[in-house]
Amino acid sequence: MSDIVKIAVDAMGGDNSPQKIIDGIVHNHKNNNNIFYKIFGDKQKINKLINGNIKNGLYEIIHTENLVLSTDSPLEAAKKGKNTSMWLAIESVKKKETDIVISAGNTGALLVIAKLNLKMIDTIDKPALSALWPNKKGMSVVLDLGANIECNSKNLFDFSIMGASLFTSLYPNQKPNIGLLNIGSEELKGNETIKETFKILNDKKSDNYDFAGYIEGNQIMDGDINVIISDGFTGNIALKTAEGTANFIVKELKKTMTNTILGKISALLNFSNLNKFRKRLDPRLYNGAIFLGLDSPVVKSHGGTDFIGFSNSLDVCNRIIKGNLIEKIKRNI
Amino acid sequence: MSDIVKIAVDAMGGDNSPQKIIDGIVHNHKNNNNIFYKIFGDKQKINKLINGNIKNGLYEIIHTENLVLSTDSPLEAAKKGKNTSMWLAIESVKKKETDIVISAGNTGALLVIAKLNLKMIDTIDKPALSALWPNKKGMSVVLDLGANIECNSKNLFDFSIMGASLFTSLYPNQKPNIGLLNIGSEELKGNETIKETFKILNDKKSDNYDFAGYIEGNQIMDGDINVIISDGFTGNIALKTAEGTANFIVKELKKTMTNTILGKISALLNFSNLNKFRKRLDPRLYNGAIFLGLDSPVVKSHGGTDFIGFSNSLDVCNRIIKGNLIEKIKRNI
Repeated sequence: MSDIVKIAVDAMGGDNSPQKIIDGIVHNHKNNNNIFYKIFGDKQKINKLINGNIKNGLYEIIHTENLVLSTDSPLEAAKKGKNTSMWLAIESVKKKETDIVISAGNTGALLVIAKLNLKMIDTIDKPALSALWPNKKGMSVVLDLGANIECNSKNLFDFSIMGASLFTSLYPNQKPNIGLLNIGSEELKGNETIKETFKILNDKKSDNYDFAGYIEGNQIMDGDINVIISDGFTGNIALKTAEGTANFIVKELKKTMTNTILGKISALLNFSNLNKFRKRLDPRLYNGAIFLGLDSPVVKSHGGTDFIGFSNSLDVCNRIIKGNLIEKIKRNI
Repeated sequence: MSDIVKIAVDAMGGDNSPQKIIDGIVHNHKNNNNIFYKIFGDKQKINKLINGNIKNGLYEIIHTENLVLSTDSPLEAAKKGKNTSMWLAIESVKKKETDIVISAGNTGALLVIAKLNLKMIDTIDKPALSALWPNKKGMSVVLDLGANIECNSKNLFDFSIMGASLFTSLYPNQKPNIGLLNIGSEELKGNETIKETFKILNDKKSDNYDFAGYIEGNQIMDGDINVIISDGFTGNIALKTAEGTANFIVKELKKTMTNTILGKISALLNFSNLNKFRKRLDPRLYNGAIFLGLDSPVVKSHGGTDFIGFSNSLDVCNRIIKGNLIEKIKRNI
């Protein structure tokens, strides 16, 4: 890595692309003169959207003829082969032309094409999908969020190491503690895989993280645990349930608060506070899932996010490279 | 069942018992002259707390010398044997002296003592823990919430039948639809057990429920699915994650809304609306988990709820008996 972080951007994935992607890059570029964006997609459209708003020398457009659709199955996407923006963006990381790749496109396709192109880190058997999860004190890292439906204790242990490495890359001054998502805090609770993983994490001591035991679903938001480990089935359901609950409450509250004239007025009076609240829980703040386990970092932006959300994901890319994520994982294994 | 619903109440379980339990019964009794409460616990204390506030003939106190503690393991609780309030309350249902039993005590102990005393319904292999879950349109029934860590497709199918029967007992005018909690809505998603259960539910048609396919975590709160089926591990984590998220958001919002003078004033102006909101999501409204699969109904009130919450659980007991839950399950199998 040079001082310049080189990000390969698939400009054609997600809703309202490439507009959102390019607006996100332009927004991100305003505060980052150390990032080079290698942009894969429809050159003519992209050029028009950039409209001189990124400094020469800090971007390059690679024209691509084809793209992965959100409706493609992973197999269909992979079969489209080497001339999609997604494939070429991943290939540029493989060839070390760039440090990290990001796409807002089809998650399954991104995972499969990344696995086809990139090597796994030695001794890691399965890549995991991780994300940031807001809590009372800041953010935690949670994985796996759906890449692996079934996991053994070796997988969960690998996820722990990778998650702790990701957390330290993003928050360099904190020694993370790791919790295993379970249905109780006593050592005897849970299935055999969880109990075995508990034992492994409890026996192996590390200077880079602490093991805090089990964590229950209602404790995730407390913010005492920095890295939360789960199989992909449970993790996915926990994450989506939390999203659904948050949406439900915020919407219901808004409806209730403004359903009388007095309510409307008082909500207006409280506008700046309510706005602060909205900002704190803004999903764009923690947009971006990170595939861990491949020997180059791959970031997935939410397909439905806007340019601010995409720009935040580019920040995550930048922090991952500056934090030496892959080196950290290799060292911690 | 006569017209009088007979509820066996363990008065000694949960925080602040028997005070909360008796206050809950007295509160419940105000609107229910068709319920007979058979109360198990410290007779002297209970008599003093009732203080003439329940009509003679609508209650009976069975003095018990011993009680199950919240710190007892299920085994320890069972070993205390037949003179705890919990054991005796369950035994009275077994002997058909009462129709249903409720306790706010130790969940694990309640499940184990119930299983020791009560028969399983024919062909049901595992009892499940179900609860009401609030959503945009009302309430859904969700199970299993932690009784069974690992489940096969037969178990999940049984849970579906039992959950649909519970829903119809509580909401007699609605034909419920059933969803399987999964990580995607496509038929190919999920583990083998889920896919097998999908097939079973899809093949068996019933007049008593519809099968709606898979449901994802973020759709639980939409209220389109009435009965949500999961293994106990995933279900427990989903439920607790939703609780944690709800608490987090409500607390953060309260903090944000009142952290300026203007915010405080406007929150005061909006007091009645905010209160309505709080009422709609009040956990006391949906207090009470129901063990399904035993040939008598067993209800677990949250140990931390107050007398209003406990009274609501007594309402659930009443509706379960009036709705002929056990008969419905037997008929639907």
